[in-house]
Amino acid sequence: MSREILDSVWRASGIRLIGDGVPAGDVMAAQASLTHWDEWFPYWTDLGDTYERLAREALARNRRQSAGELFWHACLSHHYAQFLWFHDSVRRDLGQMRKVALYREAAPLFAAPAIRFDVPFDGFAIPGYLRLPPGASGSLPVVIVLGGLESTKEESYRFENLCLTRGLATCTFDGPGQGEMYFQAKLRPDFHRFTSAVLDWLEKRPEIAADCIGIIGRSLGGFYAIHSAAHDPRFKACVCWGVLFDLSYYDQMRDPARRGFAFVAGYDDAEKAGPYLRDTLDLSGQAERVRCPVYALHGAQDVLIPATQVDRLRKAMAAHADMTFDIPEDGNHCCHNLYAVVRPRMADWLAERLGART
Amino acid sequence: MSREILDSVWRASGIRLIGDGVPAGDVMAAQASLTHWDEWFPYWTDLGDTYERLAREALARNRRQSAGELFWHACLSHHYAQFLWFHDSVRRDLGQMRKVALYREAAPLFAAPAIRFDVPFDGFAIPGYLRLPPGASGSLPVVIVLGGLESTKEESYRFENLCLTRGLATCTFDGPGQGEMYFQAKLRPDFHRFTSAVLDWLEKRPEIAADCIGIIGRSLGGFYAIHSAAHDPRFKACVCWGVLFDLSYYDQMRDPARRGFAFVAGYDDAEKAGPYLRDTLDLSGQAERVRCPVYALHGAQDVLIPATQVDRLRKAMAAHADMTFDIPEDGNHCCHNLYAVVRPRMADWLAERLGART
Repeated sequence: MSREILDSVWRASGIRLIGDGVPAGDVMAAQASLTHWDEWFPYWTDLGDTYERLAREALARNRRQSAGELFWHACLSHHYAQFLWFHDSVRRDLGQMRKVALYREAAPLFAAPAIRFDVPFDGFAIPGYLRLPPGASGSLPVVIVLGGLESTKEESYRFENLCLTRGLATCTFDGPGQGEMYFQAKLRPDFHRFTSAVLDWLEKRPEIAADCIGIIGRSLGGFYAIHSAAHDPRFKACVCWGVLFDLSYYDQMRDPARRGFAFVAGYDDAEKAGPYLRDTLDLSGQAERVRCPVYALHGAQDVLIPATQVDRLRKAMAAHADMTFDIPEDGNHCCHNLYAVVRPRMADWLAERLGART
Repeated sequence: MSREILDSVWRASGIRLIGDGVPAGDVMAAQASLTHWDEWFPYWTDLGDTYERLAREALARNRRQSAGELFWHACLSHHYAQFLWFHDSVRRDLGQMRKVALYREAAPLFAAPAIRFDVPFDGFAIPGYLRLPPGASGSLPVVIVLGGLESTKEESYRFENLCLTRGLATCTFDGPGQGEMYFQAKLRPDFHRFTSAVLDWLEKRPEIAADCIGIIGRSLGGFYAIHSAAHDPRFKACVCWGVLFDLSYYDQMRDPARRGFAFVAGYDDAEKAGPYLRDTLDLSGQAERVRCPVYALHGAQDVLIPATQVDRLRKAMAAHADMTFDIPEDGNHCCHNLYAVVRPRMADWLAERLGART
């Protein structure tokens, strides 16, 4: 079983790791070295420690940019250590916390620094980062970048860079059930209120053009993007990077993904979590309310989210005036296998809709 | 045999493709699809055509940055089509020419454009590109980036970006036997004269600080870097990205590399090329003359260039006042498997020695 999980993780996510920034040499070394899923967590944790040591060495020599990216590599290693590691919450939490701490060290060192924020809302503190295009001035369009079930605000560094180079600022945060926020709040039906709280905060920043704010979310984040845009008319563009319309397929979902949905909702038992999740994650009646332009990307070969989910979104938004579906025939989950093509394409679409340059 | 070549190419160079910019999804798809070396050239050529089509579509929509990188991906695909394809010079030449043409289209579209030059010298026109850090002004330090046996001026785009972000301008060119220049001149003993001609041209550019010029070369380019710095005292820093001191191991070298050395020297017969190559490629008596600081990187696990080559350089430069050896234990050829660590490290060293920022 342990071998099967490992194989399925590599099959579904191997290229994604590289697309998000894990060096190919590390992925290939891991593929050659690991034989069982049990070895996954300690392997990536050790690698994270190695990168952290290299980062501190670079920083001691005042090699700030290198130190920043090495801290980020350390962060990514710990992120992937706990990736899908839902059966062992002690180590999973540890991986999350190391990831968060290391990204905080990386953030000010990037060529385009990531500015940390904690927006107070309803007794929570919503953690996130704002990044501005280097050398830019005046008020800038901005894109809110949402993670999904297993991606968080620390994992979109590369996609953010695509936005920055097009003159778009970026804002990432963890919502309920995600990353750092998971320790404060589990998955809940009003994710959009957290998004709107961040939007309230963003609007007040002098660097931001309040009338040029877009949103993009990947995988489960694609759900949250539509959900947030449905509830907040201030968004001028919305990208669904992987379509998840509802959890009608929850009982067909395989572990560790199924277990993961239950986990982030605060359930130990995936079976018992079913009714709550199906009820909470459903765009019916919401998707119809989105008024801004929408771009939906979905890989026709996605084995994690079935293509029927795209059909549901298409049907719900049939009357929408400005809706683009981009369904590459050879794309896998979130088209991660086509990252060099589809990610710039989404950034271009956002830049066009928000008045930035391409 | 054809299967063996394919396996050895993947083993030696699989990660290098990704490090140089080939999307991981393309490499993994090729690994899953190709079964014989014969299929290599057409596979990558087809992919190059696909990227070219995507590039033209992006350009038609005025998505300039995406178009630039898609043209570059097309260029890289054609580059790797002809990579090590020494047994079929007709198709190899075709691949080279497509690569060159596509990079010319990409060059002005990059966020940091590549400015084409053709420096007249001795009846030749030395083709190359100059790139400047975006937003920079005043006179800038610059790094000359050399390719090797199978890397050319089009393949260092990513490494150049690491330099640019550190405030270093970059200058790449093809010397005798390399890329576009191969059609004018085969491998010859006075490569350094071509480097110096480019340096003469660079010194006259108003954007360039003539007293802050460094050089880096990879693999056979590491030889050319030392060789050029030995003959031209104007270099202030020299990086040997993979140490090649001489061809004393030529008879132990395996195909297609051995055939490749003969090919770029204009020989059909690798056996017959031996004496000329051994005589022409030898740093004895040259390395001793280098006065500027030198940084030499070599992977201890390099199976293409034996570690004894490092010993030879170490011995020849024993009296050098500022010589750094960086020999990662787990590094392969040029440490391509460690690209995320060693490439920024070399860029940092260059930036420090040339007075740029890190």
